[in-house]
Amino acid sequence: MFSQTDFVHMERALALAKRGMYTTDPNPRVGCVLVKNGTVIGEGFTQPAGQDHAEIRALKDARSRGHDLRDATAYVTLEPCSHFGRTPPCANALIEAQVARVVAAMEDPNPQVSGRGLAMLRDAGIEVRCGLLANEAHELNIGFVSRMTRRRPWVRMKVAASLDGRTGLPSGISQWITGEAARADGHAWRARASAILTGIGTVREDDPRMTVRAVDTPRQPRRVLIDSQLDVPPEAQILAGASTLIFCGNLDQRHTERANALRDRGAEIVQLANAAGKVDLPAMLTVLGERNVNELHVEAGYKLNGSLLREGCVDELLVYLAPSLLGMDSMSMFNLSAPETLEGRVKLNFHSIDRIGDDLRILARFVPSVAPEHTAGPGTDPASPPVSN
Amino acid sequence: MFSQTDFVHMERALALAKRGMYTTDPNPRVGCVLVKNGTVIGEGFTQPAGQDHAEIRALKDARSRGHDLRDATAYVTLEPCSHFGRTPPCANALIEAQVARVVAAMEDPNPQVSGRGLAMLRDAGIEVRCGLLANEAHELNIGFVSRMTRRRPWVRMKVAASLDGRTGLPSGISQWITGEAARADGHAWRARASAILTGIGTVREDDPRMTVRAVDTPRQPRRVLIDSQLDVPPEAQILAGASTLIFCGNLDQRHTERANALRDRGAEIVQLANAAGKVDLPAMLTVLGERNVNELHVEAGYKLNGSLLREGCVDELLVYLAPSLLGMDSMSMFNLSAPETLEGRVKLNFHSIDRIGDDLRILARFVPSVAPEHTAGPGTDPASPPVSN
Repeated sequence: MFSQTDFVHMERALALAKRGMYTTDPNPRVGCVLVKNGTVIGEGFTQPAGQDHAEIRALKDARSRGHDLRDATAYVTLEPCSHFGRTPPCANALIEAQVARVVAAMEDPNPQVSGRGLAMLRDAGIEVRCGLLANEAHELNIGFVSRMTRRRPWVRMKVAASLDGRTGLPSGISQWITGEAARADGHAWRARASAILTGIGTVREDDPRMTVRAVDTPRQPRRVLIDSQLDVPPEAQILAGASTLIFCGNLDQRHTERANALRDRGAEIVQLANAAGKVDLPAMLTVLGERNVNELHVEAGYKLNGSLLREGCVDELLVYLAPSLLGMDSMSMFNLSAPETLEGRVKLNFHSIDRIGDDLRILARFVPSVAPEHTAGPGTDPASPPVSN
Repeated sequence: MFSQTDFVHMERALALAKRGMYTTDPNPRVGCVLVKNGTVIGEGFTQPAGQDHAEIRALKDARSRGHDLRDATAYVTLEPCSHFGRTPPCANALIEAQVARVVAAMEDPNPQVSGRGLAMLRDAGIEVRCGLLANEAHELNIGFVSRMTRRRPWVRMKVAASLDGRTGLPSGISQWITGEAARADGHAWRARASAILTGIGTVREDDPRMTVRAVDTPRQPRRVLIDSQLDVPPEAQILAGASTLIFCGNLDQRHTERANALRDRGAEIVQLANAAGKVDLPAMLTVLGERNVNELHVEAGYKLNGSLLREGCVDELLVYLAPSLLGMDSMSMFNLSAPETLEGRVKLNFHSIDRIGDDLRILARFVPSVAPEHTAGPGTDPASPPVSN
């Protein structure tokens, strides 16, 4: 169904899409390649929100180079949109350009599109194919797919540990267990996220900025802090600069002054308590989904890590393993209790394994049965790409 | 210095050498390829101890096929031996065969050879080159090199753990954390070892046989048990079959009966106490070296693992990481205390990373500064191949 040439052009479209890794948020990262008579005549990728989508960029590129689009093939990493958002629908633009064929990597998971863009193209007499390199396209927009199909972000929890699974000395000292390359790589994962989440424990321990510094990006993810009792000091670095979103639990009058001081520092406070008066973590994910968070990057201590895991709020672990041993009294990754039997253990899949400098990067995803919430909502298991037509 | 053709033939010689992985012990695994006029005319690899070395096998192979060896090139993964051991020197056989050229991957670390084999060949007018694929050849005989240069085995400690670094539930249950493929792979590492070591704790907990079962091998490694007070029950499975070597600490008259019962079961008992009355682990390595143990495979619990690490008795960790979490109250890999500062942590290098079934296999080697004993003795750091001429 797809030729070798199709693969080559879609690979290129995926490479273009990746150029929007840090900038398209909250839109998906999309790439587009226009080919006519075997020659690439236009290329584009999604611009920051409100600006051109990939298809429009590619059409403009081809026209600026004097090309007529008739009979061209458009390779797009995501189904062209069919609705008016902040920009007009891309499907219309391709129809007007009279392209002959559209090859899409995957359908748009956006319920407002979800096949309609492809149908519009077909109705206009354009030959349409979907599903080429769908896995790669899905991975690129795993957060967008999650938000569209599950109404919550894709949650990636980052942990840096020694080979014996320890994240810091008993004193809490953890800077640095991994090497410079791994830390820079960690910043690249921060940069692609819509938001970065941490907890009050980490703020108290390390007073981190939770910004992207080691890689070049024009966009800083929103910072999110879980702080049940608004214990964060107003001078904490996480409050410096752009507004930080703080989730808290039950408050009383004693907290009014604290809340005001934090708002003075630009923080936004959302009260979202569960029955225990602590922050309702699954509900928080829903709120973040409503606020267009695609990928949520978590860097927290073992306590919050454990709570997020226990409440089924984590989709994958991003573990950096350093070639060292810290000893059994050092700090653990997650405040999780042992199961009664081995059968009851938390099960994952190793999604990818890479060497980063002297360290190892492991991306591990939860096996759905462990976190049944993951399959709730209108979508399907996010680890499997949507079925293509 | 080496041609592409040389590489191809040495790769083949290494592949042949690997066929002796489970059988040449205590001799090194060596492969030999004889080439004449661009054609392979003979091949061989080391046979079980007392039988033909690789060169002799290859010469016999070539002759049985009617070839004259004059002007041939011999590719050998280890310098041909120059001394009479259980078999006559291979260097002589190559000289008598009138080969024109010998390419060796590395010098023989055996102080009885160590360049003398190559010198004999040169003195006979044969062109000699050494150092082709030396790293690969060194890895293949890392235990033999260790025994020859450090007078102790290469010690490989195997651990199977969850991604959060736990080896079993708080109850001790650990069967099975890793999958079938990883367990079979573990048996392949057992099979290549000269001896398999465990501790009385593991015997009490699991009553393991400590034999090679998941892979096919004609040779079972010697089993070694650390059991300070001879607490192993005579009916323990580790005592079944071939004689197990038991190291114990200070004994008194109360132990006489136990010792006799164990000897009745075929066990050999070696008393080797340190100042604390426990087994002197570094001295034990020397004893094992004297007993021709090249690679020592350790599968023990966190206590003995910790003792071996603390006493600088481990060269590499063979860690199988399973894609699961067992929780922070589950069992740790090593009974090691946290260092005072991060600088003081145990440092390793990741030597290799491979996926084995659903699990991950990590081979990590200690950075020499942590275990200064490793560089003592007549040899050099065993992680670096010997300098070739």
